[in-house]
Amino acid sequence: MSGLIIWTYDWVPKGPRGFVRDLRLRWACEEAGLPYSVRTVPFDGRETNHLAQQPFGQVPFLTDGDLKMFESGAGLMHLARKSEKLMPRDPAGEAATLQWMFAALNSIEMVSVPWWFLTMTGQPDNALTGWMGNRLDQLEKVLGGRQWLAADRFTAADLLMADVLRVGKVRAFGDRPATEAYVTRVTDRPAFKKVHADQMAHFAAADAKRAAADS
Amino acid sequence: MSGLIIWTYDWVPKGPRGFVRDLRLRWACEEAGLPYSVRTVPFDGRETNHLAQQPFGQVPFLTDGDLKMFESGAGLMHLARKSEKLMPRDPAGEAATLQWMFAALNSIEMVSVPWWFLTMTGQPDNALTGWMGNRLDQLEKVLGGRQWLAADRFTAADLLMADVLRVGKVRAFGDRPATEAYVTRVTDRPAFKKVHADQMAHFAAADAKRAAADS
Repeated sequence: MSGLIIWTYDWVPKGPRGFVRDLRLRWACEEAGLPYSVRTVPFDGRETNHLAQQPFGQVPFLTDGDLKMFESGAGLMHLARKSEKLMPRDPAGEAATLQWMFAALNSIEMVSVPWWFLTMTGQPDNALTGWMGNRLDQLEKVLGGRQWLAADRFTAADLLMADVLRVGKVRAFGDRPATEAYVTRVTDRPAFKKVHADQMAHFAAADAKRAAADS
Repeated sequence: MSGLIIWTYDWVPKGPRGFVRDLRLRWACEEAGLPYSVRTVPFDGRETNHLAQQPFGQVPFLTDGDLKMFESGAGLMHLARKSEKLMPRDPAGEAATLQWMFAALNSIEMVSVPWWFLTMTGQPDNALTGWMGNRLDQLEKVLGGRQWLAADRFTAADLLMADVLRVGKVRAFGDRPATEAYVTRVTDRPAFKKVHADQMAHFAAADAKRAAADS
């Protein structure tokens, strides 16, 4: 028993279900065959009620025995170092995985999440749209030439990049066939399908509990 | 000789000087006492001329013997694993460093860079301003209680977080005394001062070369 615990919210509204980032850590554990359990902190009062565990009030955070860490990227790196299935052990394969994990977060998601946020707040044509299009076009060129980002096989970099790209409005923005095929390829993996269903079930069960408490 | 080469542009306009991200890697090498050299790719034509090295046309990228990697975060992680001065070797200290490196990039910079971009394009009061203020307020609470982010001493997490926070408009946004003291503390380090001066000199020398070519 590895003692891995993935912490998420006890409940979220319907919108973010299937996209809460505990999914990244569940997915990594499933790919690697690492046993884990899921525990919760309350969604209500999240701004302040678990700042000792996560200083921005977010989820997920991860505990592994005595170790604690927040940030899904850091948790994913921690898991990737436990399993060759997530990150090759040769220096070149490891470096390639590392660089594409950071690219997913710092070159794509750094644009796509604020762009999505502006879009959701009524500004579909905003000042980030051109930047977003450029980055996705550059990535399309990369994905036109290969099946996986690093080491010619699935790694944690694909897990993270596909999770960034599968957000509805991001995926629907423009026509990039290699990127679309890539997202489909990565999210067709059984481990993704399992953890997506698990997260949906987790929040659906919370609905049932809330309804029972209200009745 | 470690064979570390940090790649940056041959020239940039005055605005970004002192902030081009090769600085993060130079700084890490200086803190760790790792020998390195700096080489360049042309700024003109950067959109396409070095996509084989960096698929988004950016700098820096790092070569270490046969290894190549782009993304300043990935390069910094690579360097941090070479030196205990950048990242403690005990699991708890390493996990704390890792989580705060990702927090700098994915919880702060993911908001601050797009916010800065909107501000620079004539939208000082934009839809990201509230989000930005929240994140910086949360960080202010953390920094009110400690001198360093991880392991009670300087790590690569401080290097990265301070580099994110020292951007002029970000640093001037609101009044957060613990954060300001922190940025001052980290950027007062001799290694930062040296690499900042080195980067300024690098681009000033490029001005002189351009002027000579034009005359």
